Amino acid sequence: MGGSECTPRALDLARRVGQLVAGRGGILVCGGRGGVMEAAARGAKEAGGVTVGILPGASAEDANAFIDIPVVTELANARNVVNVLTSQAVIAIHGGYGTLSEIALALRSGIPVVGLETWSIVPPGGGNTGLIEARTPEEAVEAAFLRAGPGRRGPFVE
Amino acid sequence: MGGSECTPRALDLARRVGQLVAGRGGILVCGGRGGVMEAAARGAKEAGGVTVGILPGASAEDANAFIDIPVVTELANARNVVNVLTSQAVIAIHGGYGTLSEIALALRSGIPVVGLETWSIVPPGGGNTGLIEARTPEEAVEAAFLRAGPGRRGPFVE
Amino acid sequence: MGGSECTPRALDLARRVGQLVAGRGGILVCGGRGGVMEAAARGAKEAGGVTVGILPGASAEDANAFIDIPVVTELANARNVVNVLTSQAVIAIHGGYGTLSEIALALRSGIPVVGLETWSIVPPGGGNTGLIEARTPEEAVEAAFLRAGPGRRGPFVE
Amino acid sequence: MGGSECTPRALDLARRVGQLVAGRGGILVCGGRGGVMEAAARGAKEAGGVTVGILPGASAEDANAFIDIPVVTELANARNVVNVLTSQAVIAIHGGYGTLSEIALALRSGIPVVGLETWSIVPPGGGNTGLIEARTPEEAVEAAFLRAGPGRRGPFVE
Repeated sequence: MGGSECTPRALDLARRVGQLVAGRGGILVCGGRGGVMEAAARGAKEAGGVTVGILPGASAEDANAFIDIPVVTELANARNVVNVLTSQAVIAIHGGYGTLSEIALALRSGIPVVGLETWSIVPPGGGNTGLIEARTPEEAVEAAFLRAGPGRRGPFVE
Repeated sequence: MGGSECTPRALDLARRVGQLVAGRGGILVCGGRGGVMEAAARGAKEAGGVTVGILPGASAEDANAFIDIPVVTELANARNVVNVLTSQAVIAIHGGYGTLSEIALALRSGIPVVGLETWSIVPPGGGNTGLIEARTPEEAVEAAFLRAGPGRRGPFVE
Repeated sequence: MGGSECTPRALDLARRVGQLVAGRGGILVCGGRGGVMEAAARGAKEAGGVTVGILPGASAEDANAFIDIPVVTELANARNVVNVLTSQAVIAIHGGYGTLSEIALALRSGIPVVGLETWSIVPPGGGNTGLIEARTPEEAVEAAFLRAGPGRRGPFVE
Repeated sequence: MGGSECTPRALDLARRVGQLVAGRGGILVCGGRGGVMEAAARGAKEAGGVTVGILPGASAEDANAFIDIPVVTELANARNVVNVLTSQAVIAIHGGYGTLSEIALALRSGIPVVGLETWSIVPPGGGNTGLIEARTPEEAVEAAFLRAGPGRRGPFVE
């Protein structure tokens, strides 16, 4: 998860994360648009993976060029919920308010979230959250696979 | 599209439709649950296809055994919109009120809908609708592929 | 419930229904836009009622002039689900595919639906549905109040 | 906005906020459940206001006792989007991950958000966000009304 507008560094991190996720046989789920989403999907395709893009608009043609399976929702920002729930684990890379909402929604639903140079969040009154901070794409993907929930993977990725 | 509770005949039709869709290289999108959804996904897997299940609940474990890619929405019946918009064409087989809502939502969004022994609908004041009626799974799949909208297909189905 | 594009007759029926609903102390829930929705809301305000509009877009300014409480969803057609579930009973007047989806979604959720010159629907294999047909606004509102589910009404409408 | 599970202090703040919102003629929009949502709605009713509850479940009976207009969504956490978009301004009081998602979604959509002892959030790379911090209910309501967007208010609250 990450923003459509982002820095070159965020793109590099996302592409590497995509490569690593696909390299381990994972399906790359993202928001299907540009920026971090496109870089991650590109990385996943470079590593021979499968990509799913959960789109906010009404047309599959909005998907970036590296999405195999566009899921068309026309739900605008409410698609962030689908994005998160469809993931066995979330890796948040940099990101704007949309990514912050995905971090919150994932934590709300008990889905593991790993942050890579993303938002810092402190609850009311202080204390820790479930957000796991990683320093590198390798650490992030390792942490995500370690904690990934009981989703289902199609036979074509095994 | 079709109901989770259905007749043996509906299951036979759905399985055959799934086989034909996958046999032509299509991705089978369905609601991910039992009945017609499971039979269609089963048929698609028998023909070596890829299946996507758009689930109403909060867990990927709700998907039937033939779903490769479960999309988890926790949107209850609002997931019917995602189900429909994600499809390049819809084939409705028998079905209850949920299927009727999918027929209506697809027609509302300009997505081609082929009916196979499904609901009869007559607009206020009479006249025709966009619902295309087919008599066999072969006719239904032929009509669906003929009218399918400009979605995107992943390289693994080509 | 009804279409934004409709005949003058549909507008007359909707306005009368709105007057009758408000005259009995009901809150008028509709999709908040033009056509049948606006006419029903107008009727409700003429009778001193309260109106709620469940909007498909992102702005409260999309509501017609007779909506007291605009609910902004940005869910496009998925807002039809909210529209229906928020209603203790649904009266469908004429209508296009969107209204047909609301009829189906209401029946799916066990919410009473009364039709006034609306869609005719026949299930697969024939037989009846839960759709109650009324001939006049008076009959429709009487039937709707008779079957209305256990919603909640604010003290200001009693 | 705030959590269903919360401290006594959060309840006190919420009730006072509800009183002040209603005292200025505002409609109180909340998630319709317990905790902060119930306390705010209670406060609003004590000041003679009108309350709207955007519910995550399928039944209007889930609403707390101080909700005049229950909006039933059956969208689970995706209802947070509706909650936020329906508000001309958001006041976040304490809160858990759900409230954090609402803060993020409101900022994402350009809706003013005032925080009262709520989450601290720092964007990737540091810097400020649009979240306005208030120290008291009075400050929070003043800030919210000052920045409130162009929603619509029914004549019965004027």
